[in-house]
Amino acid sequence: MSHKSKTPSETVAVSTEIVLPNDTNTLGNLMGGRLLHWMDITAAIAAHRHCGRVVVTASVNNVSFNQPIKLGEIVTLQAKVSRAFTSSMEVFIDVWIENNTTGEKKKCNEAIYTFVAVDQLGNPINVPALTPESEEEKQRFDSALRRRQLALILTGKMKPEEATELKKLFM
Amino acid sequence: MSHKSKTPSETVAVSTEIVLPNDTNTLGNLMGGRLLHWMDITAAIAAHRHCGRVVVTASVNNVSFNQPIKLGEIVTLQAKVSRAFTSSMEVFIDVWIENNTTGEKKKCNEAIYTFVAVDQLGNPINVPALTPESEEEKQRFDSALRRRQLALILTGKMKPEEATELKKLFM
Amino acid sequence: MSHKSKTPSETVAVSTEIVLPNDTNTLGNLMGGRLLHWMDITAAIAAHRHCGRVVVTASVNNVSFNQPIKLGEIVTLQAKVSRAFTSSMEVFIDVWIENNTTGEKKKCNEAIYTFVAVDQLGNPINVPALTPESEEEKQRFDSALRRRQLALILTGKMKPEEATELKKLFM
Amino acid sequence: MSHKSKTPSETVAVSTEIVLPNDTNTLGNLMGGRLLHWMDITAAIAAHRHCGRVVVTASVNNVSFNQPIKLGEIVTLQAKVSRAFTSSMEVFIDVWIENNTTGEKKKCNEAIYTFVAVDQLGNPINVPALTPESEEEKQRFDSALRRRQLALILTGKMKPEEATELKKLFM
Amino acid sequence: MSHKSKTPSETVAVSTEIVLPNDTNTLGNLMGGRLLHWMDITAAIAAHRHCGRVVVTASVNNVSFNQPIKLGEIVTLQAKVSRAFTSSMEVFIDVWIENNTTGEKKKCNEAIYTFVAVDQLGNPINVPALTPESEEEKQRFDSALRRRQLALILTGKMKPEEATELKKLFM
Amino acid sequence: MSHKSKTPSETVAVSTEIVLPNDTNTLGNLMGGRLLHWMDITAAIAAHRHCGRVVVTASVNNVSFNQPIKLGEIVTLQAKVSRAFTSSMEVFIDVWIENNTTGEKKKCNEAIYTFVAVDQLGNPINVPALTPESEEEKQRFDSALRRRQLALILTGKMKPEEATELKKLFM
Repeated sequence: MSHKSKTPSETVAVSTEIVLPNDTNTLGNLMGGRLLHWMDITAAIAAHRHCGRVVVTASVNNVSFNQPIKLGEIVTLQAKVSRAFTSSMEVFIDVWIENNTTGEKKKCNEAIYTFVAVDQLGNPINVPALTPESEEEKQRFDSALRRRQLALILTGKMKPEEATELKKLFM
Repeated sequence: MSHKSKTPSETVAVSTEIVLPNDTNTLGNLMGGRLLHWMDITAAIAAHRHCGRVVVTASVNNVSFNQPIKLGEIVTLQAKVSRAFTSSMEVFIDVWIENNTTGEKKKCNEAIYTFVAVDQLGNPINVPALTPESEEEKQRFDSALRRRQLALILTGKMKPEEATELKKLFM
Repeated sequence: MSHKSKTPSETVAVSTEIVLPNDTNTLGNLMGGRLLHWMDITAAIAAHRHCGRVVVTASVNNVSFNQPIKLGEIVTLQAKVSRAFTSSMEVFIDVWIENNTTGEKKKCNEAIYTFVAVDQLGNPINVPALTPESEEEKQRFDSALRRRQLALILTGKMKPEEATELKKLFM
Repeated sequence: MSHKSKTPSETVAVSTEIVLPNDTNTLGNLMGGRLLHWMDITAAIAAHRHCGRVVVTASVNNVSFNQPIKLGEIVTLQAKVSRAFTSSMEVFIDVWIENNTTGEKKKCNEAIYTFVAVDQLGNPINVPALTPESEEEKQRFDSALRRRQLALILTGKMKPEEATELKKLFM
Repeated sequence: MSHKSKTPSETVAVSTEIVLPNDTNTLGNLMGGRLLHWMDITAAIAAHRHCGRVVVTASVNNVSFNQPIKLGEIVTLQAKVSRAFTSSMEVFIDVWIENNTTGEKKKCNEAIYTFVAVDQLGNPINVPALTPESEEEKQRFDSALRRRQLALILTGKMKPEEATELKKLFM
Repeated sequence: MSHKSKTPSETVAVSTEIVLPNDTNTLGNLMGGRLLHWMDITAAIAAHRHCGRVVVTASVNNVSFNQPIKLGEIVTLQAKVSRAFTSSMEVFIDVWIENNTTGEKKKCNEAIYTFVAVDQLGNPINVPALTPESEEEKQRFDSALRRRQLALILTGKMKPEEATELKKLFM
């Protein structure tokens, strides 16, 4: 494992899937659970590329399913680490579908997962820092702290009044 | 579809799964993506039992994976609708594993999914109201409004200053 | 493993499945083999809850498929130990489907599987006794002996004239 | 569909499977439910070859699992129609495993399934007669009547005193 | 492992599959990748029967997909070793589909795979010789040498001018 | 469907997979059949991106499996159209595995598949031309003609003496 800082683009993982009959509900649309599963695998690969260790899913933040994805459509998932903490990594997953005849890609989902790097006994271990480069990467890096405070509050591990980053939102 | 109000216990869906080799990572633990998939199916059945219509996953709220689930362990998922809005339903999923020899059950996960009821063209349709009964059901019913405001803010559909329920947390 | 006697209700295992495209034949109905597989898993969990040991399928008694189960329908399986012998357990599996709009449940299958508890080398080991409580549980407990004699005759391990319980049926 | 009589050998269906990790329990042995599923598919092909119509599983008669089948072993299933009734067909499935180094085959299971031929609406339709040839085929053909009476009694469709073939066993 | 020579008919492996929804593309035809997977498993069993050792896929020679195979059709694959080299075996796979009502079989694919026998560390080990018997087996045995030279040229392990068998084709 | 010429880079499709237990043989290595299946799906997406129509696998050219891929390893597949003919497209698939700790990628497989574009009745239809750009793309474009002649000879659709491109190799 290398401990020198990495950039988000070094962690990119891409997956392409075709929606098969067993992935669909009775309306012929991709079921949410299948997409959550695909996102988890792609995001785990990105987190693994960041730290070179076994990673386990720690949490799933808000995921919205905005529009139906149809049977036979091609789904492209791109995952990229957005921020590294002591032993955890936040990963953004962007999902596109492409028009079957024009090939034009349309973004249809965005999700955020968090992974923890562990040793062979399952204990958390340190991960390298992440240095964002592009404008979007910097925004996602900054807002990761706010999301982390929110997660800590929601699981009762932080008091709302201590969430300095988050409080700014409401005042 | 019946439009008369339902109770959470009328919507309960239970699933029991054994963790098989293909569900595990290289540490022999259940992969997060597989659990997310199982939770989605069980929660969809609960939402379907509430409204008697086709339901589609609308969003996944914070899910935490607190402890590893091992190969061969029995996983029990219980889903129950916690609140109904105009055409959407919030569903709580509680996950237990049981000790293989004593049979004692231990809670290991809790997740919240939201589903929307749709007609055959995929357009949202109204769902019955939900009337909570137990103390826990009432608490989950009340906090659902706060989670809904949070989701609307995070997706840019509500301004923080309008989130009256949520603001109370920070002041 | 606890050797004190258990009641059938302590062994109940419930599973809920949605019939997906790959589970169906060309008429769009659930294939028998898939249901046999689901019943085996749910029944194994019930047997495991009775004895707290690894269990292996020993035999399948008469299973009838009385009515087609359609693509997209919700199938609920409930398994419960009906009688324990030295190292084997007989398990009843009841299967229901529910009407998609009224939610009314209709029983569509009943099956009986037998499991044997084994140690890590695969050798049979003793299991606790079972004490039936409800009227139905007592009936199933009593008739289990008849089914066991029938199985022993069909596999050539008992002579018909020794099957005292079974002979009563024909005389 | 041809209505002229067929011989059992015209209906033979063979399948060969390798036991993969997901097919096994925690002892590394093939799970009963998976074998039941494989037997159903192979037997359905034999029944289909007999009648040239869609067939659906009607019942599973006594199946015994006599010995464990290990991860990585090659399993050969052979199904053959043993008797045809008005619209149903009884099918015998013989299962062998082969020694990995000597290649010697050993029979490890025998099962009997019954299928019904149906039209596109799922209604039963007539099937051709079956004419057994070998000694084993003739024995299975004869005993099929006894098994049918047993099934009718067990499902309450025949009174024990009417089961002339079966009564002979006990007197 | 026996090192005495074997005949092709001693290595025959047969598999029968029904085309399920998840095996098909949006035209309702069997996807090529699924058939390639089925052919690999059946051919591996034939190679294993020849040498009684673990075998791994070494290469796939030209496979043509001449005609669509439809959802619900029964596919029969037969694999047979065509020639053995030092540690590798060439296997022919013939694929048939059968007419659903007449039962008439029609050949629809032919493929050639090569396997290598390996020990527990993955190192190649010697395999028995193969003695072809029928006319077709002899032809396939002879042409195997030509295909092997072609493979060696295509992977840069043989110079075209050394491929004596192959050169005859073009002169 | 656009009929204007495309470049190889406009057709690139990438997939990333983790080798799971069910994908492996008894040595814990990825089975060839599974990799053939993954390659088919990724290559089909590249061919689809070239022509914007339904594509079906027409043939698989020589594929070599040079080194074992282990359980838990990350496999990256990249497919790119190498030449377009009237209604068919040749696609190159390159496969890499990456070192789990250094992240270094190593090429482990190369395969060539051919696809045909079809209309809704399954009849072949014309596809746009391909204009190679990089040096490697030009080499693959040129050698595609030689491979096509070879395939036509092997399937008996061309006489060896007519294969002008191929004959040069041997003289």
